[in-house]
Amino acid sequence: MEKDNYKKIALAITGLVVGIVMAVFLSARFGSATGDGGATTTLGATAAKDGVSEEVVEAALKTYVPPGKLDEYYLFASGGHSGNVFVYGVPSMRRLRTIPVFSKESAVGYGWTEESKKMLGEYTWGDAHHPALSETAGDYDGRWLFINDNANSRLARIDLKTFTTEQILGPIPNIYGPHGSAFITPNSEYFMMASRFAGPIPYGKYAPLDKFKEEYMGLLAAVAIDPKNGHMSVGWELLLPPWSYDLSDAGKKVSDGWAFLTTYNTEEASTLLEVNASQRERDYIVALNWKLLEQAAKEGKYKEIGGAKVIDPREVPGSIYLVPCAKSPHGVDVSPDGKYFIGNGKLSPTVTVFSFEKFMEAVKNKDLKGEERGLPIVNYEHVRVAEIEVGLGPLHTQFDNEGNAYTTLFVESAVAKWSLKDFKVKDKVTVHYSPGHLSAAEGDTVSPDGKYLVSLNKLAKDKFLSVGPSHPESMQLVDLTSQKMKILYDNPVDPEPHYAQMIKADKIKTIEVYPKDEKREGVVYKKEDARVVRSGNKVTVYMMGYRSRYYPDQIEVNEGDHVTIYYTNTDLDEDITHGLGIMFYDLNLESQPGETGKIEFIAKKPGVFPYYCTNFCSALHQEMQGFLLVKPKQ
Amino acid sequence: MEKDNYKKIALAITGLVVGIVMAVFLSARFGSATGDGGATTTLGATAAKDGVSEEVVEAALKTYVPPGKLDEYYLFASGGHSGNVFVYGVPSMRRLRTIPVFSKESAVGYGWTEESKKMLGEYTWGDAHHPALSETAGDYDGRWLFINDNANSRLARIDLKTFTTEQILGPIPNIYGPHGSAFITPNSEYFMMASRFAGPIPYGKYAPLDKFKEEYMGLLAAVAIDPKNGHMSVGWELLLPPWSYDLSDAGKKVSDGWAFLTTYNTEEASTLLEVNASQRERDYIVALNWKLLEQAAKEGKYKEIGGAKVIDPREVPGSIYLVPCAKSPHGVDVSPDGKYFIGNGKLSPTVTVFSFEKFMEAVKNKDLKGEERGLPIVNYEHVRVAEIEVGLGPLHTQFDNEGNAYTTLFVESAVAKWSLKDFKVKDKVTVHYSPGHLSAAEGDTVSPDGKYLVSLNKLAKDKFLSVGPSHPESMQLVDLTSQKMKILYDNPVDPEPHYAQMIKADKIKTIEVYPKDEKREGVVYKKEDARVVRSGNKVTVYMMGYRSRYYPDQIEVNEGDHVTIYYTNTDLDEDITHGLGIMFYDLNLESQPGETGKIEFIAKKPGVFPYYCTNFCSALHQEMQGFLLVKPKQ
Repeated sequence: MEKDNYKKIALAITGLVVGIVMAVFLSARFGSATGDGGATTTLGATAAKDGVSEEVVEAALKTYVPPGKLDEYYLFASGGHSGNVFVYGVPSMRRLRTIPVFSKESAVGYGWTEESKKMLGEYTWGDAHHPALSETAGDYDGRWLFINDNANSRLARIDLKTFTTEQILGPIPNIYGPHGSAFITPNSEYFMMASRFAGPIPYGKYAPLDKFKEEYMGLLAAVAIDPKNGHMSVGWELLLPPWSYDLSDAGKKVSDGWAFLTTYNTEEASTLLEVNASQRERDYIVALNWKLLEQAAKEGKYKEIGGAKVIDPREVPGSIYLVPCAKSPHGVDVSPDGKYFIGNGKLSPTVTVFSFEKFMEAVKNKDLKGEERGLPIVNYEHVRVAEIEVGLGPLHTQFDNEGNAYTTLFVESAVAKWSLKDFKVKDKVTVHYSPGHLSAAEGDTVSPDGKYLVSLNKLAKDKFLSVGPSHPESMQLVDLTSQKMKILYDNPVDPEPHYAQMIKADKIKTIEVYPKDEKREGVVYKKEDARVVRSGNKVTVYMMGYRSRYYPDQIEVNEGDHVTIYYTNTDLDEDITHGLGIMFYDLNLESQPGETGKIEFIAKKPGVFPYYCTNFCSALHQEMQGFLLVKPKQ
Repeated sequence: MEKDNYKKIALAITGLVVGIVMAVFLSARFGSATGDGGATTTLGATAAKDGVSEEVVEAALKTYVPPGKLDEYYLFASGGHSGNVFVYGVPSMRRLRTIPVFSKESAVGYGWTEESKKMLGEYTWGDAHHPALSETAGDYDGRWLFINDNANSRLARIDLKTFTTEQILGPIPNIYGPHGSAFITPNSEYFMMASRFAGPIPYGKYAPLDKFKEEYMGLLAAVAIDPKNGHMSVGWELLLPPWSYDLSDAGKKVSDGWAFLTTYNTEEASTLLEVNASQRERDYIVALNWKLLEQAAKEGKYKEIGGAKVIDPREVPGSIYLVPCAKSPHGVDVSPDGKYFIGNGKLSPTVTVFSFEKFMEAVKNKDLKGEERGLPIVNYEHVRVAEIEVGLGPLHTQFDNEGNAYTTLFVESAVAKWSLKDFKVKDKVTVHYSPGHLSAAEGDTVSPDGKYLVSLNKLAKDKFLSVGPSHPESMQLVDLTSQKMKILYDNPVDPEPHYAQMIKADKIKTIEVYPKDEKREGVVYKKEDARVVRSGNKVTVYMMGYRSRYYPDQIEVNEGDHVTIYYTNTDLDEDITHGLGIMFYDLNLESQPGETGKIEFIAKKPGVFPYYCTNFCSALHQEMQGFLLVKPKQ
């Protein structure tokens, strides 16, 4: 009986233990919590309040980055016609930074300092389209971010040590709207830009639209990048037929040395393109041998037009081929191994996979099928390896680390996952709504990470609290860690990311303080050196600021003086930024730790003008102020 | 034996059941999930990866707003020297919108359209400081958001039906840097603005700094708001001593009709304020009877200075009193019942609670203690009901629905919770780092909601992925639902929210489409009506756009023509916005569903200029384009 009892108890305990172990295992991680101070706030109650499902709990935990932890990836998204770059953290999708590029941003004095005014030139905005991280051997190297301006045919470089724009190049000669761009070559030799619009070249040439087919040109510009410092300059350009070039990608590994552009409007319509540019069943992917073209430029096989070396590809045999592709393809994307280039059909429900090897065979064997506008056409059937029905409105494709490709379907509002091994669709996930580009973790490099994908959706409709007739765009974070894709997060975004790139966080090495440099123009590090120097009607102020004062904090000038202020933040301390705003003079700059800024103005208005620190800096921030006194003309 | 076995089994089952019930209870809500397609992705693994604690799981679930759900609150945060307003959703802390106010924003054509250019006037930036939602009976009514510009002494109104800036007023006469403002009266009669800087009035008057005490003035402007349409106009102004007015609040309920301002620099220093404005142990809260002053203005008791009706308070007895308050107080905040006004010490580790009732008694009984600058001073000891040691650097206070107050401690990097019932500190939570303002749910109205609080932190240091020397600011979401405050979320933000207000989402009623209005200037709703009209060298284009075309899509003008384009988006469909960017002419506008925009320019550059939709709108968005042809002068 004792033994029996013992056994009973043992069995009961065994049962309890099994159950409790299960309970403890779960509760240790997500267990019921009793709120401090007596308020009962069980997790169950929390989770239950909205009828929270398992998927929701998983998504919440996968995207929540607790205080003290950091995101795993940076996501650099173009800001479209805002002219900016937006920087997000992944997986939290928190917006870490807005980097002004083609538009002014008073928060950081960009467009008010002399240096930034000079960079922006005559333009007050830009249409930032496709960011491109610098690459070494086809992999992101974390040095620079490049981005194109579709409105004024410019290109900018952002230094990722400081997250600031360091150079704007352009307008680049002869190229109307370089939408088909921002796809960099594998060692950042070139940033390739192709024209969305055909136009007469050089700029300023007038040609009526009835001369469209004769006098309007397409163009590709190869902007050379200095591998030491990222400095950009126009390398060479290439004349193209008057079609629209939509997107582009550089070859990788086996296909290194080649570049691929999509075309639409091979119909050469100049009005109502919605209808007239969608007539043909096939447009083209244009394949370029850029190493051959680079050589041709070196050999002087170009004409100078608008100040650029412009090559006519018909004069460089073997430099260009047309690959037929289904109806108005949008994106073209090269697989990580470089073996395939993939056209996304836009007006056809297919992605078309072309084999680079077969393409090279065709080239080698001169297996061609006539030409258009003097450019040789390869046989579609001989180079295409698959035409995959992915769904309606395929626009762009990215890749993971397991041989899968992911394609956005604009019309269908979905992302399709398909395999590069058997060219079959494996999964599809609905996104909200109407995705344009997508960005997988390092998903356009030679070594994608998988893990995360962001769908850049154009419409939000009712997904977020309403902010009036103009809704936010959205980004949806998609989990790639299992065979089925899962939506993890819905993020509203300001207009308008077109493309984004996602880079592993540890690849980026920022500086925290601008290094001390006694030779820097106008710099002052000691308050005894702060001064106002007059020479005729030119007044130069050598100013410094640190918590919580300016030297000098009184500046007297005469009405009409030309005033230059050099302003150095001598707080060489992480995160201590000081602003300098001058009332009614419409001036503001920001000086980051150790930085020197320069502003210039004519003292047109007489009177008294307080200046003050615009960037909260300390408990006595409010006291960080001074007076500019402008003595009126007698 | 069978019975025994049965019992054993029964007992074992009982044990198992107890355990399993526990397991099932927990797993049903947060349970282990097996990934679809076979990949094991247990929640345990997810949660365990960072050693996730119970608090983290709770915070993740409380802040995650799953797809299909909406946030509970809008948070309207000033964008500081960016000139913008940022709109966040709470509790997700997702940024829903950037509303341009004092700075241009090409993403929406703000600063490019004629209407917005006119509003912005000669200024290209502003320093947006303190947002103030319109109120009815002391409660947010969801109609408008007002915000001040500290750099150019302006004030703007945002319409919350459209989330767009509808009016900018200013520079408002005589007021240098209206930092002490954006606190609206309980029925939105006035938006009160007080000067941070003393200066000679009117603007343009020169007075050297050695005349600071005689010729520099402080000032309060009462901007009147039309209750029907929100139209703002300068009501009256009030001369004040040459001190700095830091913040302000309007009385509520029992104290309705009064307003309170904090001062610092009653030392009247004009240089090195960091030291010189921090000498006195007490500065003041200035108490104003604004209803009396309004009456005085009506009775003509003012001088006209700089175009404004300026009242000298010494000529309106009973209109103004000085209430001594500990050292350079920063914020002043009126409790929800209007019974207390609270000074936040900044350079003193205390908040001081003043009784409005005792203050009124002192006023009534003429219980005064001399005067300064001709203004009567009340006895500190007779009106103060508590001086609470909350911690180092108290700046601002907000309230919940249970009689508690929350004060930011800048130096201590914390938020203190204290009771309005016993004036004792109840809790403190560390924030990262250096909080300025804070915003509780409807926390400055007559009926706060409790629940959420956002701490607006000035420094982020190492809290987020580094974005270079200039770090983001941060907002931390704090849970107020239990007695102990808990940090729920860390959110990086662009520079630089100073203050924010949080309003229940259902109070805001937006429109989705601009209503059809045939009488609107330049509007076109039918493609047959789209046209180009020439009159001499003036060309007017009546343009319409809808998915995915422009009418007209060809515009011919002559070099030097003055061109006006009216552009109507006739897609009367939620979320379908069309842009219009013109290459190399530095022009962009956005037309929301049903909206008409107007741009004007001189056709200075000859040549061909593509124009295109800058806001992705449909599968054929790329085809939405046209050509502006500018015929060169002969």
